[in-house]
Amino acid sequence: MNPLHNIILPEPTLRRLPWYLAYVEILRGKKVRHVSSTRISRALSVDASQIAKDLSFLGVKGRTRIGYEVDALATALSDFLGFSHSHKAYVIGAGSLGLALIRDSGLSNYGLEIVAGFDVNHSIIGHREEGVEIMHIDRIYETMATNPAEIAILTVPAEVAQESADIAVGAGIKAIWNFTPYRVKVAEGVVMANTSIYAHLALIYTRLHTLGNDNL
Amino acid sequence: MNPLHNIILPEPTLRRLPWYLAYVEILRGKKVRHVSSTRISRALSVDASQIAKDLSFLGVKGRTRIGYEVDALATALSDFLGFSHSHKAYVIGAGSLGLALIRDSGLSNYGLEIVAGFDVNHSIIGHREEGVEIMHIDRIYETMATNPAEIAILTVPAEVAQESADIAVGAGIKAIWNFTPYRVKVAEGVVMANTSIYAHLALIYTRLHTLGNDNL
Repeated sequence: MNPLHNIILPEPTLRRLPWYLAYVEILRGKKVRHVSSTRISRALSVDASQIAKDLSFLGVKGRTRIGYEVDALATALSDFLGFSHSHKAYVIGAGSLGLALIRDSGLSNYGLEIVAGFDVNHSIIGHREEGVEIMHIDRIYETMATNPAEIAILTVPAEVAQESADIAVGAGIKAIWNFTPYRVKVAEGVVMANTSIYAHLALIYTRLHTLGNDNL
Repeated sequence: MNPLHNIILPEPTLRRLPWYLAYVEILRGKKVRHVSSTRISRALSVDASQIAKDLSFLGVKGRTRIGYEVDALATALSDFLGFSHSHKAYVIGAGSLGLALIRDSGLSNYGLEIVAGFDVNHSIIGHREEGVEIMHIDRIYETMATNPAEIAILTVPAEVAQESADIAVGAGIKAIWNFTPYRVKVAEGVVMANTSIYAHLALIYTRLHTLGNDNL
């Protein structure tokens, strides 16, 4: 395991690193060999000194007048962010969003391998979606023994979000990726990430309306 | 239009409001008629005075010893967040994530109506997905005239993210919901929301590894 993972990175840095990776991958596709922090800065509107500081967390240093080597930087970022290794996950809640995530093959490019789905709805249990079996939630315990996962992707209705997270953690899940609008609580030591698509929708709607009024 | 939308809400408030709505909807399902900020506070681990302050932005006030009326609060939150009205959107990039979002019928419960998809891949152009036609991106201009949308959901590869956003805005789109890992820039006056699923994955992976090391 990478010893750099011992460092707890500040969240804003962690949010910027994927931007750098996306940009550097584009340069790599264009066969660009070196890039300066000034160039990254112009492309992404992030302060150049901030970029140098963020990248120093990875132990990556640019050379004066040459900058960063594009290939090495892309590899370092991808490794550091965990995208080059496979991380197994269950989808809890095989409704429309859960099934959509199982079908989204793009996630595997970012190291996410969904190995099973769980639900309580008998009309979906027993189905396979892109080779992923949907099982009754009661089978999560035995599945952890035969086909374990570290991450649970929570895509259940809000009213059973807490209960479902508790079951997943009880079965041995180490991280919850919460797509529900409910604010799930987990014990210390369990990783929690919220992807608040509803909050983002609300942000878009309210900002659109404000702009609309401003224009009146 | 709701005059309250003239207020630009602080983003942290906007992020908490959907949590309150999800909780209040659960209470409504259980036929609970009143709820105090203390009860919401306990359920969601948000300070009760913060809750009262957040809700006061909506013009909703609790009554002493009775609290908030559950039905009225749910309606006020849903209206305020824009979830009770339909907002039309295009999906730009009908790859696996784009198609997944078109198939996710749950988004319509939150006021999002996807009316068209755009791509440049001829193998997908002309197809219909859940009744939504996938067209060549060049047809976005004419589609804005016949079947307009305010929001563009950006699910293209990172290397064409900026270009695709520029085309959408050029066609008259007012808000970009960016699912790509690229940091897209838009002109002032265009609403921008980033749903950084890759950053959230990176957060989960790096935190998992840190925990793993701690346990050694």
